[in-house]
Amino acid sequence: MSPGADPRSVVARIGELEAAARTALSRRVVDYVAGGAGEEIALGEAVDAWRRYRFAPHALRDVTGVDAGVDLFGRHFPSPVGVAPVGYARLLHPDGESALAAGAGDHLFVLSARSDAAVADVAAARGTAPWWYQVYVTADRAVGEGEAARAVAAGATALVLTADTPYVAAKARQGRLRTVAPGADQAPATLADLRRLTGHGLPVLVKGVLRGDDARRFLDAGAAGLVVSNHGGRQLDRTVATADALPEVVAAAGRAPVLVDGGLRSGHDVLVALALGAAAVLTGRPPAWALAAGGGPGVDALLTAWSAEVAHVLGLAGCRTPADVTPDLVRRG
Amino acid sequence: MSPGADPRSVVARIGELEAAARTALSRRVVDYVAGGAGEEIALGEAVDAWRRYRFAPHALRDVTGVDAGVDLFGRHFPSPVGVAPVGYARLLHPDGESALAAGAGDHLFVLSARSDAAVADVAAARGTAPWWYQVYVTADRAVGEGEAARAVAAGATALVLTADTPYVAAKARQGRLRTVAPGADQAPATLADLRRLTGHGLPVLVKGVLRGDDARRFLDAGAAGLVVSNHGGRQLDRTVATADALPEVVAAAGRAPVLVDGGLRSGHDVLVALALGAAAVLTGRPPAWALAAGGGPGVDALLTAWSAEVAHVLGLAGCRTPADVTPDLVRRG
Amino acid sequence: MSPGADPRSVVARIGELEAAARTALSRRVVDYVAGGAGEEIALGEAVDAWRRYRFAPHALRDVTGVDAGVDLFGRHFPSPVGVAPVGYARLLHPDGESALAAGAGDHLFVLSARSDAAVADVAAARGTAPWWYQVYVTADRAVGEGEAARAVAAGATALVLTADTPYVAAKARQGRLRTVAPGADQAPATLADLRRLTGHGLPVLVKGVLRGDDARRFLDAGAAGLVVSNHGGRQLDRTVATADALPEVVAAAGRAPVLVDGGLRSGHDVLVALALGAAAVLTGRPPAWALAAGGGPGVDALLTAWSAEVAHVLGLAGCRTPADVTPDLVRRG
Amino acid sequence: MSPGADPRSVVARIGELEAAARTALSRRVVDYVAGGAGEEIALGEAVDAWRRYRFAPHALRDVTGVDAGVDLFGRHFPSPVGVAPVGYARLLHPDGESALAAGAGDHLFVLSARSDAAVADVAAARGTAPWWYQVYVTADRAVGEGEAARAVAAGATALVLTADTPYVAAKARQGRLRTVAPGADQAPATLADLRRLTGHGLPVLVKGVLRGDDARRFLDAGAAGLVVSNHGGRQLDRTVATADALPEVVAAAGRAPVLVDGGLRSGHDVLVALALGAAAVLTGRPPAWALAAGGGPGVDALLTAWSAEVAHVLGLAGCRTPADVTPDLVRRG
Ligand SMILES: Cc1cc2nc3c(=O)[nH]c(=O)nc-3n(C[C@H](O)[C@H](O)[C@H](O)COP(=O)(O)O)c2cc1C
Ligand SMILES: Cc1cc2nc3c(=O)[nH]c(=O)nc-3n(C[C@H](O)[C@H](O)[C@H](O)COP(=O)(O)O)c2cc1C
Ligand SMILES: Cc1cc2nc3c(=O)[nH]c(=O)nc-3n(C[C@H](O)[C@H](O)[C@H](O)COP(=O)(O)O)c2cc1C
Ligand SMILES: Cc1cc2nc3c(=O)[nH]c(=O)nc-3n(C[C@H](O)[C@H](O)[C@H](O)COP(=O)(O)O)c2cc1C
Repeated sequence: MSPGADPRSVVARIGELEAAARTALSRRVVDYVAGGAGEEIALGEAVDAWRRYRFAPHALRDVTGVDAGVDLFGRHFPSPVGVAPVGYARLLHPDGESALAAGAGDHLFVLSARSDAAVADVAAARGTAPWWYQVYVTADRAVGEGEAARAVAAGATALVLTADTPYVAAKARQGRLRTVAPGADQAPATLADLRRLTGHGLPVLVKGVLRGDDARRFLDAGAAGLVVSNHGGRQLDRTVATADALPEVVAAAGRAPVLVDGGLRSGHDVLVALALGAAAVLTGRPPAWALAAGGGPGVDALLTAWSAEVAHVLGLAGCRTPADVTPDLVRRG
Repeated sequence: MSPGADPRSVVARIGELEAAARTALSRRVVDYVAGGAGEEIALGEAVDAWRRYRFAPHALRDVTGVDAGVDLFGRHFPSPVGVAPVGYARLLHPDGESALAAGAGDHLFVLSARSDAAVADVAAARGTAPWWYQVYVTADRAVGEGEAARAVAAGATALVLTADTPYVAAKARQGRLRTVAPGADQAPATLADLRRLTGHGLPVLVKGVLRGDDARRFLDAGAAGLVVSNHGGRQLDRTVATADALPEVVAAAGRAPVLVDGGLRSGHDVLVALALGAAAVLTGRPPAWALAAGGGPGVDALLTAWSAEVAHVLGLAGCRTPADVTPDLVRRG
Repeated sequence: MSPGADPRSVVARIGELEAAARTALSRRVVDYVAGGAGEEIALGEAVDAWRRYRFAPHALRDVTGVDAGVDLFGRHFPSPVGVAPVGYARLLHPDGESALAAGAGDHLFVLSARSDAAVADVAAARGTAPWWYQVYVTADRAVGEGEAARAVAAGATALVLTADTPYVAAKARQGRLRTVAPGADQAPATLADLRRLTGHGLPVLVKGVLRGDDARRFLDAGAAGLVVSNHGGRQLDRTVATADALPEVVAAAGRAPVLVDGGLRSGHDVLVALALGAAAVLTGRPPAWALAAGGGPGVDALLTAWSAEVAHVLGLAGCRTPADVTPDLVRRG
Repeated sequence: MSPGADPRSVVARIGELEAAARTALSRRVVDYVAGGAGEEIALGEAVDAWRRYRFAPHALRDVTGVDAGVDLFGRHFPSPVGVAPVGYARLLHPDGESALAAGAGDHLFVLSARSDAAVADVAAARGTAPWWYQVYVTADRAVGEGEAARAVAAGATALVLTADTPYVAAKARQGRLRTVAPGADQAPATLADLRRLTGHGLPVLVKGVLRGDDARRFLDAGAAGLVVSNHGGRQLDRTVATADALPEVVAAAGRAPVLVDGGLRSGHDVLVALALGAAAVLTGRPPAWALAAGGGPGVDALLTAWSAEVAHVLGLAGCRTPADVTPDLVRRG
């Protein structure tokens, strides 16, 4: 049987999940998930940016046994699709981060610093599957550092420093859903914060990188990897799309793994990201909708179908594994 | 009288044929013909890609006696427009491949490996006109090779190895119309399969080429020609349009003839293809609609009008024959 | 008073004239004037092509006494806007070419080879104003050559050989309005025809040039000037727009004057043409509509307003005369 | 608290102000403010031109205490957003220029030569805040020069010579709202006029520059600064957008400050202008609508919110001050 033969596309699936979630959730929560900063220009362009690339697939290559799996920092994942940090998951589902963590299964999972759940519960939901912890720098440094230390103690296998949030950007359609505890408000993170985080002995990734010179600076300061991201269009508006920023960051990053998020919605999008040099991708809103619509099992079903679609298009492109994907597979449309 | 003076354009004709066919056929068969893989992005872009090119015609050239004929592998054809392999033609018309083969007349005709008709009947329908046979590699090599051998014995003058189908891609709007016999399911073809096919002593073309490096590899392995194709948008979605891939393949192919298919719908489109270096073009859906709407005579009428339109625009562009068409005739719009 | 201060734009005027003409004329005549070849793609793009260019005007330049006049082959014209050859003008107005010729006043006027009027009547309508005569090559050479000789005898000051019409292109929306006399049907013109025409001792321009290499060939064969034209989108469809072909022809033409037609509808368009190197422009459909809507006086009013608008925008761009317009005035939008 | 945290965007604010002004004003006055020259193509493109640029923000930079202030000719301003000269402000509000001048507060304010108010009253409304005076050259030089001298005497700190108005352009939707006094009609300004103006000992800026070579000429003739402007699309139509002309002028200007106006409507637009090299921006229609809708306080509220948004996006882009903004912050979308 051919890999990923389910004719229902992931794009269609995500559309259905979002529709179901919009029915299940209040308007305010929908706006919280769906919204972006400013005039939502970056938000609107993220999806299309991936879709502008075109493939020049290889023919006559033996793709028997195509396999979408990837390795990151010594751990194996069944596909390059992972779950991005999404704050306040309990707004989406009563079991919040725990359900999300469980649904992610063997896929890469990044727990948000703005988690409603106890980190121990999330760790338990992961079982033996690896998970990463996302860090916000706080005005009172002690608060954010305490959170990071607790996550490390609970078994996180990597730390992700979100670097694009010196303060939370104005979002027109987002009401004031909740207040963070005093001192827990984000503060501008600096290179010093990054250096301090590396002291935990775990790989530290910097999330929110959109430029090659920044990438170089962060790796020189001790980062082990980078996440190209504009925070899903939720911080500075009118940024370059992550699909367009990715090649510059990859070129600057040398051998360090570069992940990317923002607007990815299909196996084809993931194939583009791989061709542009991504080691893996993260996805935020799609698993959020899946969580709201179907809890942990909904998240699992989405990631399973998505990984199958990645394998399906890998083979059609003449690639047996993500490692076979080279930059010349894509042309800018 | 001026060549091709019928004011009804081929674009308009094909529109009418498709409309008539949609009336005559069941929804499932319409979807089988019209549909594409994934989100049908490659399908949708194929037609427009040809239409983006613009002509810089020559003035004051004597085009008296303009002639659209071409030679391929030592045989003459009245125009560069040929019929692409289309599987399961009996879904379209009771006389299936035989009617299609007869309607193609002296034009180039490629019989599909997924033919409902006996190869001998198709050969008979061709009379003295040349025909090529399209080959799929099967998991059980013997099945596909037996089919090819039978076609060679029946008088095929060239073989066309379809190379873009390691497995059939997921198509959202296509139901499971029929099952192929066990073992007849496509398997990933390889260079070894290509080399083996050349053993029949006929020219072997590789169909489904979208890259210059692949083109070079295939010719080095013994291919006599290439067909630039993305399978009519029915395999990997979001590929480059064949109109855009053609120049790269032509540049790599040296003196080997390069054909192209996908989205060609007018004499103007064919003129673009010639300018981009194609030796000839194939067309799939238009003769399929013509077959459904009018049987073999419908196919004949379409190809006759199309060839006349090719001659008409050749002359208006200052070219007496396809050989007069040079790359500088087109500019990318 | 500022030059060309009438706030009603030429674009708006032409719109009104076309609307009035459509009311006055039969559907068949409207289609004759408005229509184009093939799918009318070249027709549709002609107007927009001029509108894509943007100006980088000069500031702080003394434009007192701005003057739009130009000289061509030793004769002075009040502006660079002239009337293109338009066949069968009697379909538009009972006084046909004579009214058109009179309405053109001191502006450049080119009489069509497909004139309904006697050449002597047209000459009379021009008075002392110069006029050019457009030539078609005919299958029976004697026919076309006789027409040209009669025009020369009647006082034409230049000949214009239309070179893009080896035969009349198929036009979907144009009925068979009339039949030309036997032998009067166009035949493919050649360099030999051009050379023969130069024997009359008048400047000969070649009309229908879209390429630099053709331009060079024609000038080498004795042409005194060129008209960049795609016949108003009435011959080969999907040609490059004349606005886009103009610079290449100008570059090849050296000091020979290059005129251009196709889709020009405003003083701004003319300013673009001047910046791209045109010595003057011709206009076909706008004076045709003006003739149908208001006879000779309608044509006069249009050309007067258009010339005033050319002067108006010249001054706003910091240019006192067409000679002050340099290529760097425009940027491709 | 994060800078500029008001979630209501400046784009939205301006939309509301325009809507309110349109209710308050007569159709003729609305057309006077909103309209442009010719077909209003330059007018329509001005806003979008800024919005086509995309940001590549810096992450992990300490932006604590972000400050949008700028210095120009030795004076400090709270933000790079200033008020452009807008003629006949009394049409918008009974207190006209005085209310506008007061509402501008500490922001840069340029008084129009077509002011309804006595220059002394405007000077009084400014208090200690600096203001610049815009000059038109008049056919009778004495008129314009007398106006300039009076403004200098009243305390203007710089002069702005509008250079794109040799005469007022035709505007289709603008009625003849009022007649200027005889002799007060604009005349083509020249380099000699610029040189004479520098005699007042104040910095003289040339407004209406769209080309690098012009910029160089004006600085060589004694200009102290430049304003890239196409007069809000009110003079020559189809000019390059000021967002597109700015880099060329900045490159030519060396160390002289370059301001820009036309279509700026948000903090993001201002960030683009800074990245393209602007020292500050001017805005015309937005404060005009604010004046009509809310008088001086309306103007003040708009400028305050706009400056806060500039600070907000500066910080999100990783810049503490306008001086931190470098050209590589933007990419052309
Ligand atoms: C509702 C929501 C909450 C988010 N919360 C966080 C967060 O707490 N920390 C963080 O680094 N990113 C957060 N993000 C950004 C995501 O990690 C990710 O960058 C973004 O969602 C990717 O874009 P996508 O939603 O198009 O996949 C959040 C995004 C959303 C939609
Ligand atoms: C209904 C249908 C069946 C097809 N079957 C085959 C096939 O059996 N073998 C093959 O190599 N290509 C097959 N193709 C692809 C065509 O040979 C050709 O590449 C494609 O139709 C060209 O695009 P066009 O339809 O726009 O002309 C099929 C296409 C269609 C539409
Ligand atoms: C109704 C009509 C008749 C024409 N007849 C002639 C003709 O007899 N000879 C010729 O050289 N061009 C002829 N042309 C082409 C014009 O000379 C000119 O190239 C074209 O109209 C320019 O495009 P425009 O109509 O957009 O200005 C004709 C065009 C029209 C619209
Ligand atoms: C109603 C109106 C009146 C104007 N009057 C003048 C003027 O008297 N002098 C001048 O130099 N520019 C004048 N301008 C142009 C402005 O100074 C400025 O260049 C333009 O408005 C900038 O574009 P914006 O409106 O999109 O911000 C005027 C603009 C408007 C809209």
